Amino acid sequence: MSKKETAIVLVSGGMDSALTAAYAFLKYRLAFLHFNYGQRTERRELKAFNDLADYYNVDIRKVFNLNHFKEIGGSSLTDKKIKVSKADLKSKRIPSSYVPFRNANFLAVAVSWAEVIGASRIFIGAVEEDFSGYPDCRKIFFKDFNNLIKTGTKISSKLKVETPIINFDKKKIVLQSLKMKVPLNLTWSCYKNGDIACGECDSCALRLRGFQQAGVKDPLKYKIIKSYLQ
Amino acid sequence: MSKKETAIVLVSGGMDSALTAAYAFLKYRLAFLHFNYGQRTERRELKAFNDLADYYNVDIRKVFNLNHFKEIGGSSLTDKKIKVSKADLKSKRIPSSYVPFRNANFLAVAVSWAEVIGASRIFIGAVEEDFSGYPDCRKIFFKDFNNLIKTGTKISSKLKVETPIINFDKKKIVLQSLKMKVPLNLTWSCYKNGDIACGECDSCALRLRGFQQAGVKDPLKYKIIKSYLQ
Repeated sequence: MSKKETAIVLVSGGMDSALTAAYAFLKYRLAFLHFNYGQRTERRELKAFNDLADYYNVDIRKVFNLNHFKEIGGSSLTDKKIKVSKADLKSKRIPSSYVPFRNANFLAVAVSWAEVIGASRIFIGAVEEDFSGYPDCRKIFFKDFNNLIKTGTKISSKLKVETPIINFDKKKIVLQSLKMKVPLNLTWSCYKNGDIACGECDSCALRLRGFQQAGVKDPLKYKIIKSYLQ
Repeated sequence: MSKKETAIVLVSGGMDSALTAAYAFLKYRLAFLHFNYGQRTERRELKAFNDLADYYNVDIRKVFNLNHFKEIGGSSLTDKKIKVSKADLKSKRIPSSYVPFRNANFLAVAVSWAEVIGASRIFIGAVEEDFSGYPDCRKIFFKDFNNLIKTGTKISSKLKVETPIINFDKKKIVLQSLKMKVPLNLTWSCYKNGDIACGECDSCALRLRGFQQAGVKDPLKYKIIKSYLQ
């Protein structure tokens, strides 16, 4: 019997969550958690989630449907009336794909689950420096969330959120993933709902720039591959 | 046109949320939010929610289904395998009806909705002193949650959670509700799923004790009415 403690990993199916799972895998028994929340890419992300769970031999898996995001709207990710904008990596504005307070919703669910299964860690692949301007991807947000866990749960002393790649940029994520044998070919990043990545949305642009900066070829197929260097 | 700001009120349908709505009604345009989360009393609570919304003329109403609580289990409120225990108002233990981190889940959804509709307040009828030992009903929890809103949202400076009855006990809730013409006959508190309140669960016991201490007759019908004084 393994005496490892259990860590819940929030796995969207993208590179960041895949690398985060690899970090959690070093020390913990893994429990994978995925959300369908009306995002355009629900079907494709779920496949990536299960492919990654198979790769890491994860038997504790949960997929929750958070339908309220779709009803709330306000994001191009969940509201079909709002267009997925083409990437502008130089813009300082919060992009249209921003889903308000999404990470707080995700982490709150993870904490509820953690209390019941007795997990001691929640891993999330948030990235502060290379992010798209989402306020709930910042270190200060996770620090405040850990305070909230302390005051809001029974198992107050133990459970903590960890963000092992919070200081990485996408170049480092690519290089570190290769080093840790993360199966990047199984991941999915594109915000549009196709079988081939669009290559032009914020998420594709950030991913492609990471590979280009790392000097490595992305194993995924793209409709269009532009240079995002400079 | 009203120039009132909008407040989201989390309305379960119980006395606490009804009185909280009455406080919000004094200053704000109301938006009522209710959750079905697999609680035994889903159907009856929803009726109370709509009755209260009609009473306060609330046109902005949302009911979200949070199915993950049922799948997570761990509470007698959402897990049919766990029995609803009879009340023991003297016990210091967290009762079986505790749903882990429930208020954090509820508030996270409310914040997401508030960002989209531009609400500036979220009202929740949490009660610290007269509570059943739930850690996420304490003032410190809401203080930490307000910090989290500041760091996790775009409209950081404005949105705040308010807990107008956090220091009340059930006696005061009954008396204040009468003073503010809260329609207690439309509210519902029982944790069991019947058309007549059981009179014996934690929630019925707290409610009945409140009425008994206030020296007022509860307008609801009960299967059993015991004295909870002393």
